[in-house]
Amino acid sequence: MATPPRVVIVGGGFGGLETARALERAPVEVTLIDRQNHHCFQPLLYQVATATLSPADVAWPIRAILSRQLNLRVVMAHVTAVDTAARVVRTNGGDFRYDQLVLATGATHAYFGHEEWAPHAPGLKRIEDATEIRRRILTAFELAELAGDPQERERLTTFVVVGGGPTGVELAGAIADMAREALPPDFRDVDPRRARVLLIEAGSRLLAAFPEPLSDYTRHALERRGVEVFLGAPVTEIGPRFVVLNGRAIPCGAAIWAAGVAASAAADWLQAERDRAGRVLVMPDLSAPGLPEVFVIGDTASIRSDLGTPVPGVAPAAKQMGRYVGALIKARAAGKAAPPPFRYRHQGDLATIGRQAAVVNLGRLQLKGFGAWIFWSLAHVYFLIGLRNRISVAFSWAWDYVTFGRRARLITEPANAPSAESAATGPSASPSAASSAKSAGVDSTSAAVWG
Amino acid sequence: MATPPRVVIVGGGFGGLETARALERAPVEVTLIDRQNHHCFQPLLYQVATATLSPADVAWPIRAILSRQLNLRVVMAHVTAVDTAARVVRTNGGDFRYDQLVLATGATHAYFGHEEWAPHAPGLKRIEDATEIRRRILTAFELAELAGDPQERERLTTFVVVGGGPTGVELAGAIADMAREALPPDFRDVDPRRARVLLIEAGSRLLAAFPEPLSDYTRHALERRGVEVFLGAPVTEIGPRFVVLNGRAIPCGAAIWAAGVAASAAADWLQAERDRAGRVLVMPDLSAPGLPEVFVIGDTASIRSDLGTPVPGVAPAAKQMGRYVGALIKARAAGKAAPPPFRYRHQGDLATIGRQAAVVNLGRLQLKGFGAWIFWSLAHVYFLIGLRNRISVAFSWAWDYVTFGRRARLITEPANAPSAESAATGPSASPSAASSAKSAGVDSTSAAVWG
Repeated sequence: MATPPRVVIVGGGFGGLETARALERAPVEVTLIDRQNHHCFQPLLYQVATATLSPADVAWPIRAILSRQLNLRVVMAHVTAVDTAARVVRTNGGDFRYDQLVLATGATHAYFGHEEWAPHAPGLKRIEDATEIRRRILTAFELAELAGDPQERERLTTFVVVGGGPTGVELAGAIADMAREALPPDFRDVDPRRARVLLIEAGSRLLAAFPEPLSDYTRHALERRGVEVFLGAPVTEIGPRFVVLNGRAIPCGAAIWAAGVAASAAADWLQAERDRAGRVLVMPDLSAPGLPEVFVIGDTASIRSDLGTPVPGVAPAAKQMGRYVGALIKARAAGKAAPPPFRYRHQGDLATIGRQAAVVNLGRLQLKGFGAWIFWSLAHVYFLIGLRNRISVAFSWAWDYVTFGRRARLITEPANAPSAESAATGPSASPSAASSAKSAGVDSTSAAVWG
Repeated sequence: MATPPRVVIVGGGFGGLETARALERAPVEVTLIDRQNHHCFQPLLYQVATATLSPADVAWPIRAILSRQLNLRVVMAHVTAVDTAARVVRTNGGDFRYDQLVLATGATHAYFGHEEWAPHAPGLKRIEDATEIRRRILTAFELAELAGDPQERERLTTFVVVGGGPTGVELAGAIADMAREALPPDFRDVDPRRARVLLIEAGSRLLAAFPEPLSDYTRHALERRGVEVFLGAPVTEIGPRFVVLNGRAIPCGAAIWAAGVAASAAADWLQAERDRAGRVLVMPDLSAPGLPEVFVIGDTASIRSDLGTPVPGVAPAAKQMGRYVGALIKARAAGKAAPPPFRYRHQGDLATIGRQAAVVNLGRLQLKGFGAWIFWSLAHVYFLIGLRNRISVAFSWAWDYVTFGRRARLITEPANAPSAESAATGPSASPSAASSAKSAGVDSTSAAVWG
């Protein structure tokens, strides 16, 4: 018996996972490589950033998702290069030979050549981004509560979201909801209801992928909840405490970048031709030009649909591509004919605006408001992986809906920040606390009946 | 009408919260200062470190807990000093005058004069500690799956817990359970069942606060689940990849410190007399000697019970002290007589060992095994704050109990680590990915019907 073909998949996002699943019963040996140990359900990441959900609600170990797939192993490693001549993927955890390679490495934030804006306006792609944005928003309110100067308080409670696509709309709506509903009872000196949320879009309307009436509805729905929407207004500079719009600096407590994405490094690895966003221009079967054994899918691939429009960088497109490439590799391994060229089927667009408001475009059927919000909620719970997560997320939403609460309002520091006492002590006090302890008591945390 | 007395509480742990609550209807103005925005339920922190619970299950915004208490404000700030002459608490967020001061600043890890061990064997006091320990344990298994060398694989899957108190016992049992039950189906090359878990205690038995038969049971129960218990064995050195025990270096994948605690800096702030663990020697009414308007409670106070034994550094003691000081301040504000001296009532001790095993000592009633485990679970769910958290934690436990799963197996990086793609790309590739993006696509994450 010949050794089965080796398939290497790089990336455990929607595209990579779907490829792996499509190969479940194929006579191949699959290796899935990701730099993180978890798949992140990006569509709900903004709810982690705005304290409704916990990281574990929207991120699950890739190993656990695929554990029953016995022809597959998962590797947590950083890919550093692809040697297409030797058919080897190089990583910091060793080299991996392939007979077929699938690059599903996604996209990252793009600052239009202004990478120096990144520290001042983080984007939202990873769990770590979400907890960092959550930290910045919540810390701004904490500092505002302490600020004596009204101007400084106003700055701290001004939040700027750059980019009027779905992520920007969802973030702006969620921040406004949090400020108006969840926070007010908890503060004494600052009134979170007076927080400003600015949503800035360079184009002429929000949600450009949607029909114009739904864009208009979105704008009005956001404005009703207090969000200030600026259209046709490109941001020209972002600094540590301000965003420049129309030549005027707007002081702010936190800024978030939701304006642009760029493809991963796949095109560099392959030295392949790319589009303006850095995506590999793939063949009709999603292979890289001149490399029939290398496929590029998802946000890092550039291809046009039957209508001549670009296939959008959305999860359903990545999943369809993953399923297609999986089937193609399976057919090759079985010596069967290759399937016809990839065809993207656009099923519709969804975006949520906030409590009881969303927009849905299914082509003929268009929904907005409460009905769209219910549709959006059900669709997202349905597409979560695993009953456990569905129950947990549905419960969190129901609870927060009824109580107006936000469960996950944690400000956590980077793990490598100076560790210190559980309670309040000054940073300058920590060393002396340690050195003053000539000897130490026995640990007895949790060793007692509560009373 | 005279202005109401100003009460400042430093620390939002068990003691500080209980003091605040006891002052709910008192004619005083309360300010609660903590360096973090959340109260951490430390008794369950080990379950965050071992991936059963999420941070938001065991940590809740202090503001939200106390939001209905209208005579109270919460301040997130680092205390840098206390001026007892001027009656001012100095913080990085400004100065706070007090008429009565309550220091409930807790304890931190103590390394017996070996602070250089801290980076190699973190302790478990804060949410950030728990996610860091979780990261180290899970990363060790990931690296072991990639390690070609059997010796290196053995090192990576060896976990050392230093300290045989409740935290050490709970961590060792939970790591063993995770390795035996949750991880095996997910790995291909490494067998997590073969992971070694070492629990090292310098004293002659585990859980020294418990009766000897329960200590013996705990040891046997741990050994049955594969934990290697070393008694009378002090650790003499800890390095980046090893722990030295009995003169022999044990290579390990992760080490955790659960051996000692030292009081916070309260004694330094007050320049007060302290015990060997750095705790302030307080008066019978918990005030600091010579400072009747300053109280020190919880893990940072040193006082003896009626039996002459030291009041242990456990949550119930902190809560009782908080309630006492709250009542005392309330009586003072009302011009009433002070209550009789503080009396600690020890209600018992609990510790869990792992799935279906725990020990409970209520004096006359002693439980071990399954019954104790049920008692432990119910008690801990009961003492969580808020129905929301009780439901969430009980659901997580029930689910994991049935499925042997671990929900929160996330490896997350420090927030200030280089942000990068959601999928696997090399660290060296990130800059080129960014620079290769001459222009960028429109963000459309989540803008689509899933398919």
